[in-house]
Amino acid sequence: MQVDSKEIDSFLVKLLTQVGEKLREDSIKKMSVATKKNRNDLVTNFDKKTEQFVNSEIKKAYPEATIVSEEGYGDLVKDMSGLVFFVDPIDGTMNFVKRGDNFASMIGAYIDGEPLNGAIIDVMDNEIYHGGKEIGLFINNQKIDNPKNLPLVEGLVDVSAPMALANKFAVQDVIKKSSGFRVYGSAGIIFGHLLTGKEVMYMSYLAPWDLAAGRVMCEAAGMSVVSIDGAPINMLESQVVIVGTQKVVSEALKTLKTR
Amino acid sequence: MQVDSKEIDSFLVKLLTQVGEKLREDSIKKMSVATKKNRNDLVTNFDKKTEQFVNSEIKKAYPEATIVSEEGYGDLVKDMSGLVFFVDPIDGTMNFVKRGDNFASMIGAYIDGEPLNGAIIDVMDNEIYHGGKEIGLFINNQKIDNPKNLPLVEGLVDVSAPMALANKFAVQDVIKKSSGFRVYGSAGIIFGHLLTGKEVMYMSYLAPWDLAAGRVMCEAAGMSVVSIDGAPINMLESQVVIVGTQKVVSEALKTLKTR
Repeated sequence: MQVDSKEIDSFLVKLLTQVGEKLREDSIKKMSVATKKNRNDLVTNFDKKTEQFVNSEIKKAYPEATIVSEEGYGDLVKDMSGLVFFVDPIDGTMNFVKRGDNFASMIGAYIDGEPLNGAIIDVMDNEIYHGGKEIGLFINNQKIDNPKNLPLVEGLVDVSAPMALANKFAVQDVIKKSSGFRVYGSAGIIFGHLLTGKEVMYMSYLAPWDLAAGRVMCEAAGMSVVSIDGAPINMLESQVVIVGTQKVVSEALKTLKTR
Repeated sequence: MQVDSKEIDSFLVKLLTQVGEKLREDSIKKMSVATKKNRNDLVTNFDKKTEQFVNSEIKKAYPEATIVSEEGYGDLVKDMSGLVFFVDPIDGTMNFVKRGDNFASMIGAYIDGEPLNGAIIDVMDNEIYHGGKEIGLFINNQKIDNPKNLPLVEGLVDVSAPMALANKFAVQDVIKKSSGFRVYGSAGIIFGHLLTGKEVMYMSYLAPWDLAAGRVMCEAAGMSVVSIDGAPINMLESQVVIVGTQKVVSEALKTLKTR
């Protein structure tokens, strides 16, 4: 399949700009909140509405593509052949509902299993992180440099709250070797921190749509994205993922107890 | 002593506006970083320079006042009589150094031991939270309403990383009853979150300058500020402090194991 990374990039930026405008309006309105698995796993009308909008725009522009998305309006995708879009309409739903800031909308594009394009909007700050290996990385219209390959001792790390508090895989040993621990509660927001060098590592249990856009961009920025057991990332399954500078991921893998 | 809360408020807002301008310039420049107690307890030139500037401005405007401040340019204060200013030139130094965002500068004013005025600037967002019981609360020029008295189950909580990871006082039991756990790494930034209802509780070991401004404003907003052992807050000592909505602090005190 012939794909043009620059064209997909323009499409994603335009789409997320529209999503951002809608979500900023929505976040002002009162929300009707339903409970999915438990009280902390909230689904709002806005998640569903946003996903329907994004998926239909993708289908219009790329009718041959398949879509993997969080709220169930995507396709049943069994392999990574062809052009595949991953859609997370609202990442950090709890932040969206409780804070009104630090939530994101994300789209990742893969071609025959290879990372191609990523785009993440920090909705309330109206900043779109986007790009890929072919075209480079941008915040809105501004090209950005790759972050420094800092070691663990020189940077802040973000680990998902349940994993950090329960000390899963002895992750607190990694945290103690770092400059400090932060919890922002949205993968999309944290990928933005990694791309700008504000944090040097993120570790969490992530679904494909949580990881897809961030993986494309972090790899394009020279960072490492690995599953905790050392196996290759499987974009059709959820897994525990470590994303960070090459030095930090190497140190983390030596420190973590995975068996 | 005769004091005018409105006049002190204007003075603090003007002073923190200047501090914000200076720190935004400084944060671009290369920093010379020295190590205080350990590698995570950084002192920058900018901490010291900022404190000297703030303290000298306070001395000019209120020569009769005493000053309690972090970097050693304050007075030796043995009691809370008269007008006392608490100064934290840069709160969240690690965020300042590593991230370049989510750091604050804070000033609290007390009269004969009673909370009078507080002012906190979120430097990079250029937002000043300020006010007190007499004059109400503001973000920049905008008066703000008190946050809702939410219960623990309905809000996000921020607990200092060392306390949360080590499960001190069984604080993870409190975290589990909440909507979620966040770590932002700056008391000043978190006080802003509490005042705007983005989070419902903060627990940390705080020095007087970490707590002073936030205490004034959170109490003025109808929230509770207590020391974990139930004793009254002592503004001349460091202590473990819980700040939050009345409902949340009451639930937290019942849940925490303090002996």
